[in-house]
Amino acid sequence: MRIGLLGCGRIGGVHADSIALLREVTLVAVADAFDAPAQTLAARTGAEVRSIDALVASDDIDAVVIGTPTDTHYDLIHGLAARGKAIFCEKPIDMSADRIRDCIRAVEAAGMPFMTGFNRRFDPNFQELQKTIRDGGLGNVEIVTILSRDPSPPPHAYVRSSGGLFRDMMIHDLDMARFLLGEEPVSIHAIGAALVDPEVATLGDVDTAAVNMITASGKICQISNSRRATYGYDQRIEVHGSEGLLRAGNMHKTTLERADKSGFRKSPVEDFFLQRYQAAYAAEMAAFVDSVREGRPPQPSIHDGLQAQILADAATESWQSGQVVRLDTL
Amino acid sequence: MRIGLLGCGRIGGVHADSIALLREVTLVAVADAFDAPAQTLAARTGAEVRSIDALVASDDIDAVVIGTPTDTHYDLIHGLAARGKAIFCEKPIDMSADRIRDCIRAVEAAGMPFMTGFNRRFDPNFQELQKTIRDGGLGNVEIVTILSRDPSPPPHAYVRSSGGLFRDMMIHDLDMARFLLGEEPVSIHAIGAALVDPEVATLGDVDTAAVNMITASGKICQISNSRRATYGYDQRIEVHGSEGLLRAGNMHKTTLERADKSGFRKSPVEDFFLQRYQAAYAAEMAAFVDSVREGRPPQPSIHDGLQAQILADAATESWQSGQVVRLDTL
Amino acid sequence: MRIGLLGCGRIGGVHADSIALLREVTLVAVADAFDAPAQTLAARTGAEVRSIDALVASDDIDAVVIGTPTDTHYDLIHGLAARGKAIFCEKPIDMSADRIRDCIRAVEAAGMPFMTGFNRRFDPNFQELQKTIRDGGLGNVEIVTILSRDPSPPPHAYVRSSGGLFRDMMIHDLDMARFLLGEEPVSIHAIGAALVDPEVATLGDVDTAAVNMITASGKICQISNSRRATYGYDQRIEVHGSEGLLRAGNMHKTTLERADKSGFRKSPVEDFFLQRYQAAYAAEMAAFVDSVREGRPPQPSIHDGLQAQILADAATESWQSGQVVRLDTL
Amino acid sequence: MRIGLLGCGRIGGVHADSIALLREVTLVAVADAFDAPAQTLAARTGAEVRSIDALVASDDIDAVVIGTPTDTHYDLIHGLAARGKAIFCEKPIDMSADRIRDCIRAVEAAGMPFMTGFNRRFDPNFQELQKTIRDGGLGNVEIVTILSRDPSPPPHAYVRSSGGLFRDMMIHDLDMARFLLGEEPVSIHAIGAALVDPEVATLGDVDTAAVNMITASGKICQISNSRRATYGYDQRIEVHGSEGLLRAGNMHKTTLERADKSGFRKSPVEDFFLQRYQAAYAAEMAAFVDSVREGRPPQPSIHDGLQAQILADAATESWQSGQVVRLDTL
Repeated sequence: MRIGLLGCGRIGGVHADSIALLREVTLVAVADAFDAPAQTLAARTGAEVRSIDALVASDDIDAVVIGTPTDTHYDLIHGLAARGKAIFCEKPIDMSADRIRDCIRAVEAAGMPFMTGFNRRFDPNFQELQKTIRDGGLGNVEIVTILSRDPSPPPHAYVRSSGGLFRDMMIHDLDMARFLLGEEPVSIHAIGAALVDPEVATLGDVDTAAVNMITASGKICQISNSRRATYGYDQRIEVHGSEGLLRAGNMHKTTLERADKSGFRKSPVEDFFLQRYQAAYAAEMAAFVDSVREGRPPQPSIHDGLQAQILADAATESWQSGQVVRLDTL
Repeated sequence: MRIGLLGCGRIGGVHADSIALLREVTLVAVADAFDAPAQTLAARTGAEVRSIDALVASDDIDAVVIGTPTDTHYDLIHGLAARGKAIFCEKPIDMSADRIRDCIRAVEAAGMPFMTGFNRRFDPNFQELQKTIRDGGLGNVEIVTILSRDPSPPPHAYVRSSGGLFRDMMIHDLDMARFLLGEEPVSIHAIGAALVDPEVATLGDVDTAAVNMITASGKICQISNSRRATYGYDQRIEVHGSEGLLRAGNMHKTTLERADKSGFRKSPVEDFFLQRYQAAYAAEMAAFVDSVREGRPPQPSIHDGLQAQILADAATESWQSGQVVRLDTL
Repeated sequence: MRIGLLGCGRIGGVHADSIALLREVTLVAVADAFDAPAQTLAARTGAEVRSIDALVASDDIDAVVIGTPTDTHYDLIHGLAARGKAIFCEKPIDMSADRIRDCIRAVEAAGMPFMTGFNRRFDPNFQELQKTIRDGGLGNVEIVTILSRDPSPPPHAYVRSSGGLFRDMMIHDLDMARFLLGEEPVSIHAIGAALVDPEVATLGDVDTAAVNMITASGKICQISNSRRATYGYDQRIEVHGSEGLLRAGNMHKTTLERADKSGFRKSPVEDFFLQRYQAAYAAEMAAFVDSVREGRPPQPSIHDGLQAQILADAATESWQSGQVVRLDTL
Repeated sequence: MRIGLLGCGRIGGVHADSIALLREVTLVAVADAFDAPAQTLAARTGAEVRSIDALVASDDIDAVVIGTPTDTHYDLIHGLAARGKAIFCEKPIDMSADRIRDCIRAVEAAGMPFMTGFNRRFDPNFQELQKTIRDGGLGNVEIVTILSRDPSPPPHAYVRSSGGLFRDMMIHDLDMARFLLGEEPVSIHAIGAALVDPEVATLGDVDTAAVNMITASGKICQISNSRRATYGYDQRIEVHGSEGLLRAGNMHKTTLERADKSGFRKSPVEDFFLQRYQAAYAAEMAAFVDSVREGRPPQPSIHDGLQAQILADAATESWQSGQVVRLDTL
């Protein structure tokens, strides 16, 4: 398979590394709005540098990985779909659910494979968690609890263009909730505050937040987020079912435990998302390539991208209004 | 100190055992609506059996422990307050917040000490957790997460008269939330379903539930409850603050860990609340006696009993209406 | 059952507390070479104070608990056996294996029950560990690893009269090794040094030591001891068998775990042996009373007391000589 | 740096992969006594295939990695030293300590860098453990405990040519003991048996073994080995010092924990040494290349290879004779 990569920033580099690990897959070309990152990534990977337009129009490319800023996704998806390329697109597909619906129409009209880049679904721990649930190993799922905390808050500039915590950070957990619940939430309630950095409130956002969701059959999900975690990048999931509980813990930096008069101390957990989800990023790209090759629709699909966005929008609305938002009437 | 005990059921027996461990404290008399349990407990403890009215009116008793059914509390509290007895009353004080307000007036008019029996505040683990927070060891509290699951559901007869999961079971967690947040919640949102036993729905109750709360300063609390836990009595609390995280885990039955081809397995956790909270019950009674002796107002107070009931009522209302209930306007 | 207690020091008090928890068992009298501790313990327990000789000769006593200094055990055992008393004797029975053999003859001639006070066999964790092995739950036992460390070294005066670390401290682990191996060691090799307190070397002892043992069928046991542990009283056992591994860990003071930038920290472990082995002491006395009542020979027996002493003597000899000591030829 | 690789078996492949991760390092050529593995590895790495003699004599190679069978090392080391190549040699260097001494002379005469392939020293967990000790973070080291168990026994053919468990398997732990003790042992005592596979006894070997060692200053080390572990590849180290304890645990396959009525279960540990020590192999080769480049003597040195072999020989002798072997008089 011949792949093109749009966007040569940090996440573009991650995908390029993942592609390099795959057999019989070639990264043919890379493109970026800026020349320097494109040249650097090309030098490291042996790919050619093209302009974005040229890459989209390339005949020698079967599939394209989109890692450019969110506001460029809409046009790129339409352009690539029209040219019959398989598409891997970083989340979020777009900040507007309606525009994502447009993208769905374009992609479905073209009949091309499309995968949304929710990398966490490919974390080996979360994969096994979901597989256990799917295979009935926990009986009926009753409560999903997701605790997700970033080591430190992003810069204000990032916050301003991020769409807010619910759309930028919690969207991962909302997708994970859907992945694990196996059912759509019918209502959502969100609360939040700017506790880490009070100025975030003046930007119209929060840095500490929590969500309650329930599905039609009564399955419950609670998510809490913080932009602060002094002990590393905190990513925990617990699923309680009729037959037991299954939880995925954090990945500690080492296996060391020290005991002294202050107690028993284990090392902090991985504090950088690229490190924490290294295996997930590699597995995600492998899954994309495999499903395109084998003609299976890639998962998570473009519809998964839409549903997560709808949940993130509803969470934002709930937090702003102080009211519960019903999802079954949307 | 000379103590009388009203109610000789299971919880009465627990309090009698706790009293037996205290120095210079005598359990003078016990009373129950039924004779048999009173005689049994009297035989075991060496206390005298009296009628409930006689015990309330006794001159040789300084303090009374109320462990009778909830609907008797109101009259007993009024009677005991009028006679100048210190009162320890099991939770809930009453199913009606207004009637609790009446009790507060009676107790305050009498000027007597009153303690509400929220035993979990005295669990050594939760005590140290709260003490760490109070002493600033976590910085500012940001997110409190409480997971509380019973090993198995109560009988339908119990459910019918219990006031519902939020008032019967979650009230402990609501009190714990107040204990740890150090601030009153200003809004509450509750969801729930009958997943363990669908018939519970026909009784107008749930057996699986979750709550979102936020305080005026933005501190968040999430609670989830289930009437089922295959692995024991699950009682976990996690507090996330600006300086770090502190969590209280479950108490395993043994320290054993077994490794074989199925993995590494630790023993189940204590599955009976009397076993799990044995130390808490003893410490609770000791704290009551100490505060009466030293003239300090007992904690948790009758106001704490009222506030927890208000939260439980609000949670019930939120679950029933599907709406957020605001508490700052109550 | 009517019990007399010889020795009113710390361990005597522990046994008195254990006796108080038993039904239909009365602590009739206590005795000590010094009056003050006897009076104190009598006041606390309601027992009568007698002289040691009077207690040994008492007709109103069925069983006697010996908690006096080791060098008094020999005469007391002979005196009590002659008077037909059941005997519970603290470890070590005597510093000389030959004198223990004398005691065995006296006890067996009298036909009276005798239990050696190896309390750790009654720790609930170690009990379940041994029960799992006995029931075949680990297959064939292959390697037993015992790590045992005291929080801090004893005073020099204690060291001088203790018989040395192997007879005073490691004897518990040697007994535990026999309990778990289910076979007698055929050779022992000991190493040791005075690392915690170099002056201990001038007293002819060590404070850091390790032992290798092997049984006739090839089962291996390793023990290491230290008179220092900054993190509490360290008592761990691991048994490796053909079907898996089973280990008993330490008992932490609380279930709390704190996470911050220094990592994830659990509380220190119980640091006082009376606290750590509280349940074991109570279960030990209950087992003694039960076996006397039911006419079963108490376990651990006086022979277990002898075998542990033989191992401790051999370990001491191995350490002193630098050679392996064979036990099958003893 | 231009590297040649001798031996294209499993371990040769591991080193080739590690070399591929290094910048400005080229694997120029590979060689093996058999053609097929050499061709396969060459195809995978892009290296040229040469005969062993040709590779040893190559002018376009700066450093050679020896991954051939142990009995070929002696001649290869002499040949490479004579030609001025830097050498990385898999452990053991040779089965005879005297022949290793010959190799030392040859290498020192040539003045070329030489590294012995004790990969475990480069495991990130053990590295941090040793660094903490070296930096004084545990105070004085008092007891080192090493538990090392293979998932399953090797075939009889391997056992026959392996030199026995002490030289084949425990040699890694003996090197680790030296790495952590920071002092040479002055005596060693070994015990062992064929418990996993009784036929191993007829081959003159054991599959379950333990060692006691002590240094001149009294530091103690205990090692135990088994060729069986139902739960994965068990690799644990615990160091007890005057200031506390530090232990390195196993690496679990996932972070999942499941709770149900059988208890709380974590996943098995990594069960294949290449997986378990993947990071160690990569770091080892990087360290070799770095030290050659920077002119620092590589660690572990050829002397470390000799010392570990001396300990393994002494352990074997102790096991065979049933006696303690003194090392300070060797």
